[in-house]
Amino acid sequence: MSLLVILRIVGLLLMVFSLTMVPPMVIARIFHDGNWHAFGAGMAISIVTGALLYWPNRRAKRELRTRDGFIITVLFWSVLGLFGTIPFMVSDAPSMSFTDAAFESFSGLTTTGATVLSGIDHLPASIRFYRQQLQWLGGMGIVVLAVAILPTLGIGGMQLYRTEIPGPLKDSKLTPRITETAKALWYIYVILTVVCALAYWGAGMNWFDAIGHSFATVAVGGFSTYDASIAHFNSATIEMICVFFMVVSSVSFGLHFAVWRERRLLQYIRDPEFRFFVTFLGLLIAITIITLFATGTYHDATGIRHGLFEAVSVATTSGFSVADFTLWPGVLPTMLFMAAFVGACSGSAGGGMKVIRILLILKQGIREIHRLIHPNAVFAVKVGKMRISEGVAEAVWGFFSVYMMLFVVMLLALLATGLDQVTAWSAIGSALNNLGPGLGDVSTDYGDIPSAAKWILVLAMMLGRLEIFTILVLFTPAFWRR
Amino acid sequence: MSLLVILRIVGLLLMVFSLTMVPPMVIARIFHDGNWHAFGAGMAISIVTGALLYWPNRRAKRELRTRDGFIITVLFWSVLGLFGTIPFMVSDAPSMSFTDAAFESFSGLTTTGATVLSGIDHLPASIRFYRQQLQWLGGMGIVVLAVAILPTLGIGGMQLYRTEIPGPLKDSKLTPRITETAKALWYIYVILTVVCALAYWGAGMNWFDAIGHSFATVAVGGFSTYDASIAHFNSATIEMICVFFMVVSSVSFGLHFAVWRERRLLQYIRDPEFRFFVTFLGLLIAITIITLFATGTYHDATGIRHGLFEAVSVATTSGFSVADFTLWPGVLPTMLFMAAFVGACSGSAGGGMKVIRILLILKQGIREIHRLIHPNAVFAVKVGKMRISEGVAEAVWGFFSVYMMLFVVMLLALLATGLDQVTAWSAIGSALNNLGPGLGDVSTDYGDIPSAAKWILVLAMMLGRLEIFTILVLFTPAFWRR
Ligand SMILES: [K+]
Ligand SMILES: [K+]
Repeated sequence: MSLLVILRIVGLLLMVFSLTMVPPMVIARIFHDGNWHAFGAGMAISIVTGALLYWPNRRAKRELRTRDGFIITVLFWSVLGLFGTIPFMVSDAPSMSFTDAAFESFSGLTTTGATVLSGIDHLPASIRFYRQQLQWLGGMGIVVLAVAILPTLGIGGMQLYRTEIPGPLKDSKLTPRITETAKALWYIYVILTVVCALAYWGAGMNWFDAIGHSFATVAVGGFSTYDASIAHFNSATIEMICVFFMVVSSVSFGLHFAVWRERRLLQYIRDPEFRFFVTFLGLLIAITIITLFATGTYHDATGIRHGLFEAVSVATTSGFSVADFTLWPGVLPTMLFMAAFVGACSGSAGGGMKVIRILLILKQGIREIHRLIHPNAVFAVKVGKMRISEGVAEAVWGFFSVYMMLFVVMLLALLATGLDQVTAWSAIGSALNNLGPGLGDVSTDYGDIPSAAKWILVLAMMLGRLEIFTILVLFTPAFWRR
Repeated sequence: MSLLVILRIVGLLLMVFSLTMVPPMVIARIFHDGNWHAFGAGMAISIVTGALLYWPNRRAKRELRTRDGFIITVLFWSVLGLFGTIPFMVSDAPSMSFTDAAFESFSGLTTTGATVLSGIDHLPASIRFYRQQLQWLGGMGIVVLAVAILPTLGIGGMQLYRTEIPGPLKDSKLTPRITETAKALWYIYVILTVVCALAYWGAGMNWFDAIGHSFATVAVGGFSTYDASIAHFNSATIEMICVFFMVVSSVSFGLHFAVWRERRLLQYIRDPEFRFFVTFLGLLIAITIITLFATGTYHDATGIRHGLFEAVSVATTSGFSVADFTLWPGVLPTMLFMAAFVGACSGSAGGGMKVIRILLILKQGIREIHRLIHPNAVFAVKVGKMRISEGVAEAVWGFFSVYMMLFVVMLLALLATGLDQVTAWSAIGSALNNLGPGLGDVSTDYGDIPSAAKWILVLAMMLGRLEIFTILVLFTPAFWRR
């Protein structure tokens, strides 16, 4: 039975996850922060639950089908998110409710990077490390999800990329393809992390901060071991390293893989999504910096440093900060926020609707205008050399429309919990786009909003991360019909 | 040449428009308000300009093609909007700048109903009447535009209705079909206006107010001869009459026509858009009233009266008011505002994206989910008995996406003029959806915002009214290529 196979996989997953409690335990030992037990508890509960799910079903093996892919994907993030709360709840400092622990855990794993915590600098080292590691693990999962799983499931037009990664591809067989692809992607992911950590370390971070921040950078996560985020280091070099790796990590790992396999950097320039992403980002940076100087917000090179950093951080949905862009004048806060709706490239750990979808919608919008002028002509939408099928086009439109409608519905739900308009729209936008920071009452942290609001945001993070349809599909009767 | 034919038509249009200055002149005489000259000037300038455009080209006759339809439609509203400013500028009271006069004139003709004026109660009677008449004339144009022209042009999926109204239909010939349809629609429009005016009069309005408010009601416009709008009358009967006619006027005039032709009220129930509209409206009214009582905003029947009225007024994009819904607690102001994005039924003078499009997007969204479950199956989207073609589906997705993107772009433009976030998003939403009232600084009137903001809003009103693509198409090089 399919259910037993799924239980076996979730059990296995939990047992593997329990191993991720080891590094924080080691950190707790090194720093003598007295928090060893929180991760011991997390490990024990995860491994026992995992074993209880795995052992009885260990012989339940069956080729997984597309439909199981939806369930496993959603369970993967839900179960890890839930078990990820244990160290937060067991730990003495910080003392967190289940709601807060869940918010922090899901925010980490979905690489959103919104936090309910303040005073992070003074938390036990192991907890500070654990948060960064949650993002790194989440990012690892998302890259595989985005490159290998979503295209196979056909979510929101991503079937476009179905044939990009080589490997045996049979529509109904998930496992072999995913295993092979995952290995290559993780290889790139780990190398990027190591190089980023070394760069941070070389620029003056200690090894703890360097590893922690490289985890959150490559995962496009945005968690920091300091309340002040990257601003803590007050170093132009560190900021430039961060900007570089935020951009690199927001590019499709499928594209990185292709470049690496063929040893040709030219592949980047040939990719329409990459070109659009870089152009869009460049434009955004230019507008930000010019506005900052034109409004007299900055008068020296700090304006360029901060403008560049914040524009890249928000537009890639990283969410690190060196300055409070939410206090910038006029159009800037909203403009950067809207850029997060565009987000990173597909196939990265970044959030938002993904650059390729916005590119397709623009192209399709122009096509619709041409159709009005020549009602009987046939226009093909092309991206690079690829012709976009009607199926992909409709899936992309559908994704966009449902994304917007969900945004409105969850915005109304948040307002019903009593948040003001600016706080509510920015919080839900930030969660849905897996960005992190918000405006208004949540511009520093999410600690003071009602519990109901926190749970709505957790749901939004999950919906955004799993590209909405992966979750919505589970709520249709047709899905459960045999 | 096509250009000469277009000049001839615009000239003719202006000469006809000059006649509409007669009723305000009569009102000026009756009330001795000393404002006769403002409309005399408007008439003279319109008729002379019209004649100068018409006379040299009077022999330029040619069958108009689809492409000309776009130009004439946009010119129609732009030219009338511009010449409609004359009485506002010539009149001594109010004393208005060109920007303010244009805002008021375009707001009237597009049936948006946003105003820069305050102290309307004390303005000359002729000006008060003229504003109401602008809405009525605009509504008349829009009904024909929505039922006969947009479907022929194929704007945003409205080709769906291309064959609903009988008459000779050849894709490239506009005139015969439009003339025939227009007559029938105006007949219904005039009857509705007369019945509405009589009802208002019977309920206690004087004839001046009754006619003025019936003009703005049937046009889904929302202008009033009082600052306090319908609240001025403090009459439950008048409010219920207004609610009834707001709903009736927000239903497709194509559907009214079908019911009238076949003498069968059952046609209403059979129409999927009508059913969805009524259900949606009912739900919205229920949520509004329940929330008003649950939050203790009202404790007696006033809660039901005000809840019902404001929900209907905002959701149909009428914009009349009996209470300041923008001060209502929590989710209500934003929820009602979001309902205005859905708007009225297609083929009415109401604004928003139109009920049928939202219905189609929901159906198409569900189809996309089913496609994920059964990737190889073919699903047809149906509305009633009509099967939605891929072309219509894509046009609707396209309309929604471009609408949202334009909303964001114009929101950013408004923020750049210095408005705060709540004012900006509600103002642009209100203008684009042809609703009228806003939140924040524009919750009473639009007088105090910067001129640049007013012009952005005028553009938004035009874009919303002409369903975006009619205008966008003019900005593509392909349109002007032979
Ligand atoms: K993030
Ligand atoms: K209106």
